[in-house]
Amino acid sequence: MTKRTLPPRRFIKPSFNALIEKKRDGQEFTQEEIRYIIDSTLDGDMPQHQLAALLMAIFFQQMSAQETAILTEEMMLSGEVIDLSSIAKPKIDKYSTGGVGDKTSLVLVPLAMASGVVVPMMCGVEHDYIISPLQKLAAFPGFKSHLSIEAFTSQLAKIGGAIVAQDEKLAPADAKFYELRKETGTIPSLPLITGSVLSRKLAEGSEGLVIDVKWGNGSFIKDLEQAKQLARSMTRVGRSMKRRCVALVTDMNQPLGDTVGTALEVKEAIALLKGEGPEDMKELVLKLGMEIVRLAGVAGSTLSAKQTVQRHLTDGSALEKFKELVKAQGGDTAFIDHPEKFPAAKHIRKLPAPKRGYVHTINAAMIARGVHLLGAGVEKHGDKVDYSVGVSEIKKVGTQVKQGEPLMMIHYNDESKLETALNYFKDAYRLAPKRPTPPPLVVERVA
Amino acid sequence: MTKRTLPPRRFIKPSFNALIEKKRDGQEFTQEEIRYIIDSTLDGDMPQHQLAALLMAIFFQQMSAQETAILTEEMMLSGEVIDLSSIAKPKIDKYSTGGVGDKTSLVLVPLAMASGVVVPMMCGVEHDYIISPLQKLAAFPGFKSHLSIEAFTSQLAKIGGAIVAQDEKLAPADAKFYELRKETGTIPSLPLITGSVLSRKLAEGSEGLVIDVKWGNGSFIKDLEQAKQLARSMTRVGRSMKRRCVALVTDMNQPLGDTVGTALEVKEAIALLKGEGPEDMKELVLKLGMEIVRLAGVAGSTLSAKQTVQRHLTDGSALEKFKELVKAQGGDTAFIDHPEKFPAAKHIRKLPAPKRGYVHTINAAMIARGVHLLGAGVEKHGDKVDYSVGVSEIKKVGTQVKQGEPLMMIHYNDESKLETALNYFKDAYRLAPKRPTPPPLVVERVA
Repeated sequence: MTKRTLPPRRFIKPSFNALIEKKRDGQEFTQEEIRYIIDSTLDGDMPQHQLAALLMAIFFQQMSAQETAILTEEMMLSGEVIDLSSIAKPKIDKYSTGGVGDKTSLVLVPLAMASGVVVPMMCGVEHDYIISPLQKLAAFPGFKSHLSIEAFTSQLAKIGGAIVAQDEKLAPADAKFYELRKETGTIPSLPLITGSVLSRKLAEGSEGLVIDVKWGNGSFIKDLEQAKQLARSMTRVGRSMKRRCVALVTDMNQPLGDTVGTALEVKEAIALLKGEGPEDMKELVLKLGMEIVRLAGVAGSTLSAKQTVQRHLTDGSALEKFKELVKAQGGDTAFIDHPEKFPAAKHIRKLPAPKRGYVHTINAAMIARGVHLLGAGVEKHGDKVDYSVGVSEIKKVGTQVKQGEPLMMIHYNDESKLETALNYFKDAYRLAPKRPTPPPLVVERVA
Repeated sequence: MTKRTLPPRRFIKPSFNALIEKKRDGQEFTQEEIRYIIDSTLDGDMPQHQLAALLMAIFFQQMSAQETAILTEEMMLSGEVIDLSSIAKPKIDKYSTGGVGDKTSLVLVPLAMASGVVVPMMCGVEHDYIISPLQKLAAFPGFKSHLSIEAFTSQLAKIGGAIVAQDEKLAPADAKFYELRKETGTIPSLPLITGSVLSRKLAEGSEGLVIDVKWGNGSFIKDLEQAKQLARSMTRVGRSMKRRCVALVTDMNQPLGDTVGTALEVKEAIALLKGEGPEDMKELVLKLGMEIVRLAGVAGSTLSAKQTVQRHLTDGSALEKFKELVKAQGGDTAFIDHPEKFPAAKHIRKLPAPKRGYVHTINAAMIARGVHLLGAGVEKHGDKVDYSVGVSEIKKVGTQVKQGEPLMMIHYNDESKLETALNYFKDAYRLAPKRPTPPPLVVERVA
């Protein structure tokens, strides 16, 4: 565990109210002040209502690059920091702000492992209606997402990768902040997002991080400019903490790939690991993969990075690594060889195009919500997740359709759940007489 | 008690987080939403941390005139509203944002009473270091500041005035808001100040309100433009609640009058009630008094208003009313006839001018703090307030002084408390070689 390096000097504790006023008035916090806030949050000295007011003041007044870096570091140092220095290979992780139909991690982690990069992936907070990597991996019977830090480290040393749930010993201050942010309208604050994500990610012990910042109707970041700012904020803080960092700002204005739903997405991921699957997912996996191998130093040039990841995606070595990972965490790998073993929905019906035209926009969030309503998500505590439901063969933006032609196929078990979900699916689609320009998948690279 | 007049209709309760986000994004609340927030605050359904975040969002996004009016009305209706309709005479109250050395209320209330206006004054929250009217009246042995609403009303009917402590049955929602605002840096929010002050003041049952908004180094409002905005916000809301309202924006860049300190200020008030006393206090009392009698309809023109208040201040009738008020609330009126009965400090020493020149500025807040340190204020629970300490013969801005000439006289009992206080007093004065333009006492009238 990393030790705090600040020289001990006399710090006169300000009142919490004075700290709130300072930020309210747009002033910058010192390192001592940020540490004091973090420490007081952790030990409960700072009352929740004062922390809430402070978070809202930060929402409006922002934090400077330096403040954000200090916040990140202090939150990281509030808990354990995993030491992976005993593992010789380069250790690079990937983080995504979350997207609908995004099954990248399931492909990217084994792809990086196959390319000689160790990926210590811990998945944190889940986003509304979005099926997380761990929720997808849970479709493998026996799969364990909770590993002790020791088991995690030893799996990394043995097979070079792991996808596990965030350990609560990491960045506990962030957990406290996050709980409060959820209830106080302060989730979409760039410095707070940066601090939250990076404090956790950098506590995992990786030397570098590839960040996928998604913008659009399926992301919690609806605004492209804000996504770019977040990408810059994160890479800047990452660098100031001596980690290699690259961020791609990518499109989330329609679902990624052809499927949304637990088993459906896992099957698509397996197809991708066999070099098949939809083009947009393939492109995203390759671009993120190239960034990982370049950050890791495995490939020197863009060309060799591309060749490396393309090779491992098509020669079966990434698929082999995926099997190793699933097996190491107790999952039944027979499902990888025989994806037909995954539960299938009882009914499949089409969503017919109401008229002829081009798919103009797809509201990805509404697709996610519809799939959630079909049973892919947990509505109440105790509900059982239905792995089989979802949508497939999604007609993407720019596709021409005839009236009545399927916009997508709906996989469902329960007629009573279909109706509301159907409304979401219908409303998600906008058709237009003219072909729209499909949005670029990768909008910007920030390094 | 006034009944809520909103027609009952279906209101789907939003989540508190959704309400916070709405204000965070600069949108306007509906009446139902504001009522829901107030009700949920009162019954404790809305957690403190969410209310704190909402208050900070209001600080940054403001509230529209209509929202502020609704907030004020809903806060007023959260508790009892005193019905003074059985009293035939006009009922007008005065509110001040608080100033150093301001003994206006002690003079103005009896002056208005003598002019045929009923003044139902309840004093609310005290400001830092500022000696409130009730703290001054407490110097009269036996004076009771806590009256039941029944006793308050009956005293008003009998003698036409009362100065009492805020009854906690009035605007209880404001009390909850205020407690939280003190701890979350959200005191200086114009709509929240407006709602807080007016909800309490208008629950007292007065038909009109004269507001003294002070700006300057001795006020919590340091900025003139902000003071003007507050004056406009308050009169606007008052009018929308069908009350007659006038606000004067007045100077608080130096102490008012010649004295700061409990007994010293009471003695100055008694002098003013005899038509004596310092000019600035006299001017403020007359100007506010004129507004009261005009709002009350006692005087039709500015001239007759001026004549009315001047007459009652000089013919002894205001002094007589002050005696009635002190007596009605149990105070010993012998102290009015013989102000020398008030305790005097053991020591009096001068604050010598460090050089010759003109008094350029006086930091009124520092004077107040110094007097507080001499013992006029309570530092710890259980401390006894020292009525005798304070400062007198204050040389005001624009006065020429020779080196060594007293800038003011310091009344103290405890040598050990003198030193720190003295530093405040010294630092409060700035002398300059050229005569400054003394600031105008009344900057703006907002009606």
